Amino acid sequence: MNQEVRLCEVGPRDGLQMAKGMMSAADKLRWIRQLADAGLREIEVGSFVSPRLVPQMADTGSILPEVLTIDGLTVCALACNLKGAIAAYEAGAHVLSFPISVSDTHSHANVGKGTDAQVEMMASIVDWVRTQPRPMRIDAAVATAFGCSMEGEVPVRRVALVAAAVARTGVDEIALADTVGYAHPALVREAVRATQDAVGAQLTKLHLHDTMGLGLANALAGLDEGIRAFDSCLGGLGGCPFAPGASGNIVTEDLVFMLESMGYRTGVDLPRLLGARALLAQSLPQEHLRSGVAAAGIPKTFHAGAGVAG
Amino acid sequence: MNQEVRLCEVGPRDGLQMAKGMMSAADKLRWIRQLADAGLREIEVGSFVSPRLVPQMADTGSILPEVLTIDGLTVCALACNLKGAIAAYEAGAHVLSFPISVSDTHSHANVGKGTDAQVEMMASIVDWVRTQPRPMRIDAAVATAFGCSMEGEVPVRRVALVAAAVARTGVDEIALADTVGYAHPALVREAVRATQDAVGAQLTKLHLHDTMGLGLANALAGLDEGIRAFDSCLGGLGGCPFAPGASGNIVTEDLVFMLESMGYRTGVDLPRLLGARALLAQSLPQEHLRSGVAAAGIPKTFHAGAGVAG
Repeated sequence: MNQEVRLCEVGPRDGLQMAKGMMSAADKLRWIRQLADAGLREIEVGSFVSPRLVPQMADTGSILPEVLTIDGLTVCALACNLKGAIAAYEAGAHVLSFPISVSDTHSHANVGKGTDAQVEMMASIVDWVRTQPRPMRIDAAVATAFGCSMEGEVPVRRVALVAAAVARTGVDEIALADTVGYAHPALVREAVRATQDAVGAQLTKLHLHDTMGLGLANALAGLDEGIRAFDSCLGGLGGCPFAPGASGNIVTEDLVFMLESMGYRTGVDLPRLLGARALLAQSLPQEHLRSGVAAAGIPKTFHAGAGVAG
Repeated sequence: MNQEVRLCEVGPRDGLQMAKGMMSAADKLRWIRQLADAGLREIEVGSFVSPRLVPQMADTGSILPEVLTIDGLTVCALACNLKGAIAAYEAGAHVLSFPISVSDTHSHANVGKGTDAQVEMMASIVDWVRTQPRPMRIDAAVATAFGCSMEGEVPVRRVALVAAAVARTGVDEIALADTVGYAHPALVREAVRATQDAVGAQLTKLHLHDTMGLGLANALAGLDEGIRAFDSCLGGLGGCPFAPGASGNIVTEDLVFMLESMGYRTGVDLPRLLGARALLAQSLPQEHLRSGVAAAGIPKTFHAGAGVAG
């Protein structure tokens, strides 16, 4: 069994874009450095979207040159269309994250296009990127894969169909995203299996939210199905404008605690990771930072990557 | 696969004993009625312990006669010694919960006796109860089964040994309790398997805390190993005096959401269950009630006991 788990910290993107306050570019850079120093090797540092719609991400282009100097860090950026993808490429991003919502209604609300049109957009982005001199990894996030606050249930067979269409565009990796946090472990298992049947090892990652308190249980269900990559967010920031009162992404601190306790290796140093909360708390004082491990402290029984003693 | 899951609501005992304020006997009775009306068929209503050490439980004897009139409700009460067990029996409790800590140090701190002496106490209680005219179910909770804040790691083989000794006393059921909330899914699986090997179907239940945010992931691991009974607490009240900052028991609302979403049947009506939070919040205004489902609202995709649509 593969015991390495790849974490992508999405706090600087998914976390900050939902925050009440704005983090300055200087603080973002300091924070991203702290996250990288704690051992996070992949960080979604921002997005190339309309600064009018998402002002918190307006400085993504300006922070990228500095972020790219961090040794060994894989720098991810999100875009929703070709223009944004080109901007991400030109800024030097290593990975492009691109959302394609299974729910047509959510897709229109999120990117102004239906699902099929967004798959076509993905195809034209892949075509464009593949003709450029520098390689850029292209990750598609199949969003609302476990339910939609507008359309309700999203059938598993539809998730697999959309993932198959996305795979045909030639993307490198596919994630299933629980955009509104409606997933439960049985659904995660079914959707992951159906998508694996459709696209095989191209399905690499889950993007989970903790809306109903089930985030880590859903991650465990994914692990059981062979998933070895997860998005998560320091302090569990993030959320969804379509799920009032919802909490955010799964909490990086608690996810690392779970994975390392179980014997998986994340490369993350948990005490250092907890240290990266201070700047976040100071920079966004209105945000409530979650994490059981941070509240209770790392127990003396914790040994990173140790697994179960006999 | 058995799709029925038995929930024991421990809020009136584990929840209230850690609370900053005191809930009046009248409010306790109203609250227990609301919990039963929401479909919870088993409730730990209090404990027969020193009113000096745990003043919140001093009225357990006085509320029991009324609680026992609730149709179809299995009334559980906790005791830590023979005197308390006799009091529980005489008050009419249907089930006695009795803690036996695997950690000798925790056992001394919790009940003033080491593990072996507490197993002997359990044996004398079983002997006494079995000679009484009325039957009373006896459930042993094997505490600190997943780690101890004082002793640190608790070896799985020691958990199985203590469970085997407890089984030999003739108790009806055995639970493994994550008293301080240090469990993780791999450890839950190992400890449940080892205990099943030692005591078979006498192991029925898990008592989990959400200290590190892993509570529902741990419950899922237990479900995977065949566990079909859980303790939980409305609003996730409870906690542990030995884990500062720790949150409490796993949240009944979120557990019900997870189980029913996955196709398990709990008998609980989720909207009614959420309704029982109001009295708790009003009666204990200093307590922070948790629950993702309560914060975000029940999503339109939720269908009780429905499982996964194709």
